[in-house]
Amino acid sequence: MEISHEKVKLLNGVNSPDDLKKLSVPQLVDLAGEIRRFMLDAVSKTGGHLASNLGVVELTLALHYVFDFKEDKLLWDVGHQCYTHKIITGRKEAFRRLRQADGISGFPDPAESVYDQFAVGHAGTAVATAIGMAIGQLKQGKNDKIVALVGDASIVNGVSFEALNNLGLVKRQLLIVLNDNSMAIDATQGAVAKYFSKIRLSQTYEDLRKTTANILEHMPVIGKSVEEAIERIKKSIRMALPASQMFESLNIPYFGPVDGHDIGSLVQLFRALAQLNHPAILHVYTKKGEGFAPAEQDLSKFHSTGPFAWPVSRAPCPERPAVGDERRIKRSFTDVFGKHLVELAEKDTSIVAITSAMSDGTGLVEFRKRFSDRFYDVGIAESAAVDIAAGLARSGLKPVVCIYSTFLQRSFDQIFQEVALQNLPVVFCIDRAGVVGEDGPTHHGLMDIGFLRMIPNMVLTAPANEVELKLALEFGLGQDRPIVIRYPRDFVPAQKFARAACAKPFKLGKSVVVRRRKDSPIAIVSYGSVLKEALEGARALEKDGIAVDVINARFAAPIDEKIISLLAEGKGIITVEDHQLTCGFGSAVAEMAAAKMADSKKLGALRLLGVPRRFIKHDSRAMQLMQTGVNADKIMEAAREMLSSAK
Amino acid sequence: MEISHEKVKLLNGVNSPDDLKKLSVPQLVDLAGEIRRFMLDAVSKTGGHLASNLGVVELTLALHYVFDFKEDKLLWDVGHQCYTHKIITGRKEAFRRLRQADGISGFPDPAESVYDQFAVGHAGTAVATAIGMAIGQLKQGKNDKIVALVGDASIVNGVSFEALNNLGLVKRQLLIVLNDNSMAIDATQGAVAKYFSKIRLSQTYEDLRKTTANILEHMPVIGKSVEEAIERIKKSIRMALPASQMFESLNIPYFGPVDGHDIGSLVQLFRALAQLNHPAILHVYTKKGEGFAPAEQDLSKFHSTGPFAWPVSRAPCPERPAVGDERRIKRSFTDVFGKHLVELAEKDTSIVAITSAMSDGTGLVEFRKRFSDRFYDVGIAESAAVDIAAGLARSGLKPVVCIYSTFLQRSFDQIFQEVALQNLPVVFCIDRAGVVGEDGPTHHGLMDIGFLRMIPNMVLTAPANEVELKLALEFGLGQDRPIVIRYPRDFVPAQKFARAACAKPFKLGKSVVVRRRKDSPIAIVSYGSVLKEALEGARALEKDGIAVDVINARFAAPIDEKIISLLAEGKGIITVEDHQLTCGFGSAVAEMAAAKMADSKKLGALRLLGVPRRFIKHDSRAMQLMQTGVNADKIMEAAREMLSSAK
Repeated sequence: MEISHEKVKLLNGVNSPDDLKKLSVPQLVDLAGEIRRFMLDAVSKTGGHLASNLGVVELTLALHYVFDFKEDKLLWDVGHQCYTHKIITGRKEAFRRLRQADGISGFPDPAESVYDQFAVGHAGTAVATAIGMAIGQLKQGKNDKIVALVGDASIVNGVSFEALNNLGLVKRQLLIVLNDNSMAIDATQGAVAKYFSKIRLSQTYEDLRKTTANILEHMPVIGKSVEEAIERIKKSIRMALPASQMFESLNIPYFGPVDGHDIGSLVQLFRALAQLNHPAILHVYTKKGEGFAPAEQDLSKFHSTGPFAWPVSRAPCPERPAVGDERRIKRSFTDVFGKHLVELAEKDTSIVAITSAMSDGTGLVEFRKRFSDRFYDVGIAESAAVDIAAGLARSGLKPVVCIYSTFLQRSFDQIFQEVALQNLPVVFCIDRAGVVGEDGPTHHGLMDIGFLRMIPNMVLTAPANEVELKLALEFGLGQDRPIVIRYPRDFVPAQKFARAACAKPFKLGKSVVVRRRKDSPIAIVSYGSVLKEALEGARALEKDGIAVDVINARFAAPIDEKIISLLAEGKGIITVEDHQLTCGFGSAVAEMAAAKMADSKKLGALRLLGVPRRFIKHDSRAMQLMQTGVNADKIMEAAREMLSSAK
Repeated sequence: MEISHEKVKLLNGVNSPDDLKKLSVPQLVDLAGEIRRFMLDAVSKTGGHLASNLGVVELTLALHYVFDFKEDKLLWDVGHQCYTHKIITGRKEAFRRLRQADGISGFPDPAESVYDQFAVGHAGTAVATAIGMAIGQLKQGKNDKIVALVGDASIVNGVSFEALNNLGLVKRQLLIVLNDNSMAIDATQGAVAKYFSKIRLSQTYEDLRKTTANILEHMPVIGKSVEEAIERIKKSIRMALPASQMFESLNIPYFGPVDGHDIGSLVQLFRALAQLNHPAILHVYTKKGEGFAPAEQDLSKFHSTGPFAWPVSRAPCPERPAVGDERRIKRSFTDVFGKHLVELAEKDTSIVAITSAMSDGTGLVEFRKRFSDRFYDVGIAESAAVDIAAGLARSGLKPVVCIYSTFLQRSFDQIFQEVALQNLPVVFCIDRAGVVGEDGPTHHGLMDIGFLRMIPNMVLTAPANEVELKLALEFGLGQDRPIVIRYPRDFVPAQKFARAACAKPFKLGKSVVVRRRKDSPIAIVSYGSVLKEALEGARALEKDGIAVDVINARFAAPIDEKIISLLAEGKGIITVEDHQLTCGFGSAVAEMAAAKMADSKKLGALRLLGVPRRFIKHDSRAMQLMQTGVNADKIMEAAREMLSSAK
């Protein structure tokens, strides 16, 4: 059902921030309501990050009302909360195809609009990049205002903190808006979160209003310093004092907390704070999911949702949105992992699990419920998560670290030094490995094989299906060294898929033969879940009269030397992986093959299939695999080419 | 001159912490003096991290006097300040061969001693790993005490902060000793450092004594909570209050500041604090270089020093220690880079430089002096450094990021998302790429080619000599995309070395032929400074009647396809690099060669030479290159093998 014209009357007239500036503050309030309806209408069809975006409608409108972000710079931390921003910066129509191949990205993207500064999807980057831009402005004699919008879950990330500690480098205006909704993707973890929430609980709506009034009354005017102003503000607002303590110790002028849904006040505050000639922080309270009851009630579900039924009644939140029905029937690698880890943890009390604000996404919800005293969510702190795991392993426990491939890039150095150099038995379960679909280039897991297979002591494995995921997990927990298990954001194949071959227990560095054909000139060697594509390709080739073997590599480090032996015997090898070709599984095979090139007279051809070295746009995962050439057609093509050039 | 027996009388009797415990506190004071003499004697011969170790003699003795670190766990952050710890934990004799092949590591190493928990050399890890160990202890019903010793430069690192924010996970004893000497390798940067130093300046020696007395008087006894105790301590010490603010906002009980050279007080404090059943922080003031005038006067020089003359007179610090004389004659890649960047920055005011507490090590001292307003040292914060650079580039400046290869591992995700995804022109100058010698496995730069060449848009280049380093820098600053220039901790070859071939301007993805021989069956293709080894090998082979070409690849991404053409024409290729074989330059050549294997009937052999995938022990860089097979002998061997199997 398309949203009626009447319901987005004001929005229809807003095609750029300039149109916004023509409205009155009361009209902005109405516009916020229209944007919520518009957003719900679009996201219910496309899926997307809903709850956080519903929370920042007023904040975004107030920012665009006061600043001119064609010249001024607005930096979004993480970026998934930029929907209102996109809707009012000329991307209203494209927003209906959010995260679709022919539509716009779910994250800021400078390629889409001059209003976007950085294409980002990882947390904690806005303050640091804003520092750089502010210094750059000053050096070049420009005076555009800079605003970094950061959530309370991102501000505690290590990169954010490093940046806050260096904010003194900036000798000009830079406003940090701390959007405090007490929620990361899961409830925010850690001491700072507790500290914020303690303050929040002590604040009434009346307190927030008083704070706002006091800031506006005491804001520095010419001749008065901000230090004086802050002293005066503090004296008049007893309640606001504690929140400032952390930022004061970092020498950052702090204002707030104030109500993030009160557009009128926000407009006044931004006008006043824009005049400061040095960095400052404004602490704003917002409500994730604001204005949409089902989202307010189930924040985790509506953090990042698939399509769902809308309008919904005001009755309790629907049990499962549309995409959930599919998930109930098909099981994802994530589901299989989560369930099996619980089963293993029941038997082995030394198993503990660690995640970084991703207990739902990594399948740990059940584990958290069942073993709350063996579960650690450290918030958006991937580096510390791995170090804590190293300590747990050093003390004799069996830590399982659950982080998405793309975010594990934040832990590269910790895996190298604190885990692998000590040869500690930490099991890394890497979800969202490979292309991830609609989230696009910031979220693909296309480098984990490469950065991990360089690290000495690391074992790299990837299961092809459900039974292998279980076997890999059991194998991993039995190792006395670090091991990585990677799997995609995808459903597991049907239970019977390659069952016989894959049911064999995992042996370090040993592949399994899934399909063998007599005198076949070619073997397809797949790594991980793309065994499915490999088998599809093999079957199709056979129909064309070309018999090929299919080998499931299981390990990328150490690699089964048998694969190289086949090559040395003259067999053509086609490697297939859901990872970048550069430094990937096939690259490891090519490294080993290089040595054989000198020795062998009848060396077979080697062809590597995988994702090319470029940023892959948002689209469905199936389409991305197709377009990057990780599919049966491409395998067939490679096999045919190989045979024709061998003639 | 060997240190006389008389001067280390007490130390002679200390072969383990048990021996220490037999001494009285006044004897410990004398022992501290003996250890300083012993340390100076050894380090003056071997080189090492001197100043920081002189600062923590009393602190280390007091810790070992109170705790039993055979059972209790002592975690060193960074770890280069563990010399006293090594000397008193059974490694006194081995300490004389510190950082030598046949001696002990300059960092903690569990392989050396049960008293070492983690082999570490990167900052910011101790609090996080201590959290893991504390949880592990609790879960397993153990009650060993855990102490994390962290410097003021490390505590502000992002990983440290993420850990401090998660300290609430620990429901038992965990003592963090904050060793505040106001110095990172350079003077500590950032807001926290300013905050600490402001407090420090306001504290007299008398204040510290009073604080100590107050802590001891009010320490919680059974029935009294730590919160009460802290309240009472605060009431009685006005001066100590501000330092606690930052830690209080993180809900961490804070004690201090106290004098880190007063063994008697430290012993009492540790005894009291060991009784707490939850995490706490003790803030200790120490003096880097304490007890050795030259080090106290030139902290930067004696942070990590080569051998030097000792005993020295009490006269001013010698202009250059022994190793410096050599450096004055031979110039390092670092020197050449630093000087040339200054020359370029004089002409181009948009050039700015960023480093992470390494302005000396990366050759930026002169730049900092000349262009202090275009120089940014962010402290030990590699992640934020790269993001700030991204912001600077986005605003139109030309940032040059100077970080050691090993520490750049901390910036992997930032280079990927905030720089490369935006295709921003940031120039990364990666010093200490390759094996680094005496610092050992935590400090080698053996993974940068791999993790960087995976990232789309990145250009990877490595100069072979002085002229190429200058050309690469000029080329890099002219690019409109991110570029990496890697070079080793080594001297540049003589001026005339390969001068003609290397004087050609850099062209994207183009190699240069350094030596061509008619009908040569083999080409040696080197990447970076190992051109020296490649040419040595080629000359030696020629003496044996084997003519080989030598190609200087210059780029690892994009790779010159000409190299692959040679292979396709049947020429044997030997790649040489000062990087791990896994995912390295040769691996990139092998990836490209794989495609050719299907097409070419007369494909040449390919042999990759580089560092094997294992942790490389401390030794001289020359020996490490020799042992890992990156040298002329190995090249000759590979060429001979290639020719014999081709027959």
